Amino acid sequence: MQTQFTIESNGQGLYEFTDSVRNFVAKSGAESGLLTLFVRHTSCSILVQENADPSVLHDLVAYFDRLVPDANNSQMSWLTHTAEGPDDMPAHIKSAILPTSISIPILNGDIALGMWQGIFLFEHRQAHMVRKVVGHISA
Amino acid sequence: MQTQFTIESNGQGLYEFTDSVRNFVAKSGAESGLLTLFVRHTSCSILVQENADPSVLHDLVAYFDRLVPDANNSQMSWLTHTAEGPDDMPAHIKSAILPTSISIPILNGDIALGMWQGIFLFEHRQAHMVRKVVGHISA
Amino acid sequence: MQTQFTIESNGQGLYEFTDSVRNFVAKSGAESGLLTLFVRHTSCSILVQENADPSVLHDLVAYFDRLVPDANNSQMSWLTHTAEGPDDMPAHIKSAILPTSISIPILNGDIALGMWQGIFLFEHRQAHMVRKVVGHISA
Repeated sequence: MQTQFTIESNGQGLYEFTDSVRNFVAKSGAESGLLTLFVRHTSCSILVQENADPSVLHDLVAYFDRLVPDANNSQMSWLTHTAEGPDDMPAHIKSAILPTSISIPILNGDIALGMWQGIFLFEHRQAHMVRKVVGHISA
Repeated sequence: MQTQFTIESNGQGLYEFTDSVRNFVAKSGAESGLLTLFVRHTSCSILVQENADPSVLHDLVAYFDRLVPDANNSQMSWLTHTAEGPDDMPAHIKSAILPTSISIPILNGDIALGMWQGIFLFEHRQAHMVRKVVGHISA
Repeated sequence: MQTQFTIESNGQGLYEFTDSVRNFVAKSGAESGLLTLFVRHTSCSILVQENADPSVLHDLVAYFDRLVPDANNSQMSWLTHTAEGPDDMPAHIKSAILPTSISIPILNGDIALGMWQGIFLFEHRQAHMVRKVVGHISA
């Protein structure tokens, strides 16, 4: 069983869509199996992270902006792929470091997330974007 | 077929559990298929790495501690999520950089690890922890 | 259905093998399913990245060489695992940061890559290497 999730982003940050994923699994009727999510872009990521305290999400964004500064930053003056804006190549680098696909077992009809885990689209671009994530359930 | 592995950690480091995974696959009787491991936490990771020379594991821990220093380090003074201890937010960041799930094909009744590959829980917290990893075998 | 891809590398960089993967999926006859790729080494990675502009690949290599310099670099003087050459332990670290496995849904007989996505072996060693990637298709 397959679906495609559409997630609209408005700037860098983490956009949770755990409920949409849970609804898809519930509708599938699968009692056990494997859910895989795959993002069809190279400038955003799929991340399972803590969804309890928003300060975790804030600090994640801040950390990765320090690890991979925008092209305007003098530390990044060596970048050559700059034609698509100062946040484009850094977005590709973040999408290499962070996951493009994630697989979560289904137990008793639900994904086996831990108590504090949520599923997020991690957007690395500053502009408004419409992102596509394919969901697939295997037996 | 599904199982849950329990791994107790005593501080930051890599804890190998390749043999437990191989036993699970052998008991399943699967000749071919796909094994997926998923860790139900956001402050530790699942990593396939070299299991021949312990100095590799030592250097991995040392590297990630330099890449993501504890909150006590002046480089990390911008962190906001610090209520759960100086190693908590850095553990979330490491768990974003390192894998939460890994999938390994099963060939001839065994996981297709290369000669030097082992499967590790990579613990990012300093306290004693009891970690849960779900294992799933698809056809 | 399973296969093994062999990719020869000649130094650090990204080696695209999207066409080989697409041929394998086409030959399998699978209309829908899940393709998983797993690399049997701990000093190279599997990466889905932009395959349109070669400058993206150039900058990715340059970034990771800055993030994880060779052992000859004074920033890395703390490394202990240095017997196998100055690029060996950095290659292990890069292989921890970048993916060892990736899973891509199959839709309408083809992998669900986005318009700009290609599949690459990311080689982290300088010497000529022969790399093995296992491909597996689940229902």
